[in-house]
Amino acid sequence: LTEQLFAGVDIGGTKISVLITDGGGRAVGRAKKKSKPEKGFRGVMDRAAQTVAEACDAAGVDVGSIKAAGVGAPSPILPNGTAINATNMGWKNVPLAEALRERLKMPVFAENDCNAGTFGEYALGKRQRKGTLIGLFMGTGLGGGLVMNGKLVTGDNSMAAEIGHMTVNVDGRPCGCGKRGCLEAYASKTGMAYAFKEAILLEKRESILPKLMEDAGYDNVRSSLLKRAWDEGDAVVREALAQAARYLGVAAGNLITLLGPETIVFGGGVFDALGKELLPLVKASTKEHAFPPQSLADTSLELAQLGDDAVALGAMAYARSRLLAPS
Amino acid sequence: LTEQLFAGVDIGGTKISVLITDGGGRAVGRAKKKSKPEKGFRGVMDRAAQTVAEACDAAGVDVGSIKAAGVGAPSPILPNGTAINATNMGWKNVPLAEALRERLKMPVFAENDCNAGTFGEYALGKRQRKGTLIGLFMGTGLGGGLVMNGKLVTGDNSMAAEIGHMTVNVDGRPCGCGKRGCLEAYASKTGMAYAFKEAILLEKRESILPKLMEDAGYDNVRSSLLKRAWDEGDAVVREALAQAARYLGVAAGNLITLLGPETIVFGGGVFDALGKELLPLVKASTKEHAFPPQSLADTSLELAQLGDDAVALGAMAYARSRLLAPS
Repeated sequence: LTEQLFAGVDIGGTKISVLITDGGGRAVGRAKKKSKPEKGFRGVMDRAAQTVAEACDAAGVDVGSIKAAGVGAPSPILPNGTAINATNMGWKNVPLAEALRERLKMPVFAENDCNAGTFGEYALGKRQRKGTLIGLFMGTGLGGGLVMNGKLVTGDNSMAAEIGHMTVNVDGRPCGCGKRGCLEAYASKTGMAYAFKEAILLEKRESILPKLMEDAGYDNVRSSLLKRAWDEGDAVVREALAQAARYLGVAAGNLITLLGPETIVFGGGVFDALGKELLPLVKASTKEHAFPPQSLADTSLELAQLGDDAVALGAMAYARSRLLAPS
Repeated sequence: LTEQLFAGVDIGGTKISVLITDGGGRAVGRAKKKSKPEKGFRGVMDRAAQTVAEACDAAGVDVGSIKAAGVGAPSPILPNGTAINATNMGWKNVPLAEALRERLKMPVFAENDCNAGTFGEYALGKRQRKGTLIGLFMGTGLGGGLVMNGKLVTGDNSMAAEIGHMTVNVDGRPCGCGKRGCLEAYASKTGMAYAFKEAILLEKRESILPKLMEDAGYDNVRSSLLKRAWDEGDAVVREALAQAARYLGVAAGNLITLLGPETIVFGGGVFDALGKELLPLVKASTKEHAFPPQSLADTSLELAQLGDDAVALGAMAYARSRLLAPS
């Protein structure tokens, strides 16, 4: 099986990334293209198929030699590969897997991007995994995924594992989704923007953030800048990140209390940049909020290992698993 | 299979209840005995075996004709039937299934009482179930259980589904477990006692509760008295129950966001007495806290159907499933 080739396709609001890998997940070629959602669903699908072709070129292989493609996209996905609702792509009920299957002439399996990323950590992370694994990815938003018994849990509604929208503070900060006190309202770049604006614009506190950001807005500060501000001891940035870590621990504690998982991995842009700094804070808070209290021994809290490639690699691993065991 | 006989054993801090049923869960005999935890683990096991014998007598059948027994007890239980920690029995790491197997000379399978109750609702409730089912049982404490793909989820630590100790209010009321803001700190008789004492003893508010309770303490008011106080419009009792319902909705919302279940059932003494009154409040709060907001369409929120017999019936159904598909 390791000699067979797979494609992993990561479709996001900004860019499409494609990896060609062998069956073990080792990349042999890659390509990247702007996704241009304004071109509509078909336009994005055409661009995705082109990106796969370019990645095959880079790998020096024929598209026809690819066994299957996996695609991750920012939407709940039905078992048949329909993307229900991708707000930042402008998609509602589009036949994602089918459209790529037609263009690529190969089996295509689609999953939510964070589910794919979580599956990648499960299937391709360094350690051999068997038990329950939960993934939490902190970037612009806070995405999650859940693997139990070797399979993604997508729920009876195909919308499970929306961990970013679990309530962690019942009367707390408003979230973009319309609820209050969601994990994402604290533990995401969007959520931290609320804290930055409150501290800097309303309370007029000192921070190097406005200078670092230059003309970019507070709503999506680059993770590398958060890291610089942390390193320079900026109190506003450190407090917002500590608060994010605290609520990540509340959520992780609840996930342990409910599911008793073997592993929780923390990834996404913010953890890729600040994992070493944040993980100890997350662990301390998790210990405080898991049941039984102070007994974290059974669950391992770890940094994600696949970095930027998590979604593409996870999508590839998902396609491989679907191909091996069609359900 | 329906002609085969099973025993369901519910071991609690106060009493042991045994049902003898046919394979379909119809009771053909029952018996009850005080559990007397002060007699130690062996003493309680002897009494449990006697209760099974008495229930067989009542059914007019021989103990030797019972195919298997299921036992539910208030403790996390390892896959081998060891009860890890039953505080109100005084047990630590006792071989629960094995001790009953020796005494009854039949296959015995043990599970946590709320897990058993949840499995009973899944396997024996009126509707045919296939998807994920979550049980929440509100009595002295708040117990939970989780069935996915036809099996109880007990986690990689055998302690999963402790839904009563999920944090629903991060800076909230202290819980008996040592944490803060657990669901059980609001949605249980122990939790409501905190509200009763606060309102009646500290704030000196009017309530008929002290008169109704007579000499019993606030910590475990009988559910029938809560129902009377509710019916008489007692504001203190109604507010505490409404608060319990609100936090049950926060928890149910989070469970929907995470697992997208087909069904959540609400049972236990308080729901057996006040289900009709509480369920609409729980539903309204769940709708507010589930993701996506206001989209409860996919999950059915229901009252539990097995009442007082939930644990014994669930344990019986669990034994039946283990016997049919040994894992």
